[in-house]
Amino acid sequence: MLPPGPRLAVDAIIERPGRGVLLIERRNPPPGWALPGGFVERGESCEDAVRREVREETGLELEQLTQFRVYSEPARDPRGHVVSVVFAAIASGEPHGGDDARAARFFPWEALPPLAFDHGKILHEYRQRQG
Amino acid sequence: MLPPGPRLAVDAIIERPGRGVLLIERRNPPPGWALPGGFVERGESCEDAVRREVREETGLELEQLTQFRVYSEPARDPRGHVVSVVFAAIASGEPHGGDDARAARFFPWEALPPLAFDHGKILHEYRQRQG
Repeated sequence: MLPPGPRLAVDAIIERPGRGVLLIERRNPPPGWALPGGFVERGESCEDAVRREVREETGLELEQLTQFRVYSEPARDPRGHVVSVVFAAIASGEPHGGDDARAARFFPWEALPPLAFDHGKILHEYRQRQG
Repeated sequence: MLPPGPRLAVDAIIERPGRGVLLIERRNPPPGWALPGGFVERGESCEDAVRREVREETGLELEQLTQFRVYSEPARDPRGHVVSVVFAAIASGEPHGGDDARAARFFPWEALPPLAFDHGKILHEYRQRQG
């Protein structure tokens, strides 16, 4: 039998010109703001998982989905070892919190709130890559 | 409790100028040639996992490791749903098969053998990206 491996998750960086980046306020622990995302289910591709999670948490449908980077440091998630495949995406429409998200809204890059997990580091590296 | 997710693996594309790409001959099912790689263990980053698997299967130490792409289609692995984080890397020295690999050697890009899993597709997309 195979030894147990890490859990697999996906997260989305959804930028909008003049509005910044979309964050959700988490309903479950750990509390705070974070990128929209969640666990990948067995039988579901990472691309399908991130579309589903963003739809559930923000009501938005993703367009122009591209892979950004994988984050896999064992200590990045306080719930246990979770590896996240992070995507960059575009989405139109106004977000509204749903499912595991108490709220969903855009934050200017210059005024991000404290972020759960390593999502602050992820956004920092994303911005560096863009610049 | 969380629903069970896919298993997480890593694979390495190791190119060498004039020699092609490094492949291993699998000792376990499914048979045939494949990229060196294997399952990520809990508590291990993807980068550490790919260095360990390549060391075990080929005797080589990876240098200049970069993420290429994640492959997550549920049908890509006949053993079940396995998501692979694929890296591109450089390694010096002569490979020799070990652990789960019966053999390890470079193949010219023009003369690749039939490959297990979706590794033929992965190498095709990698070459397209390089060109």
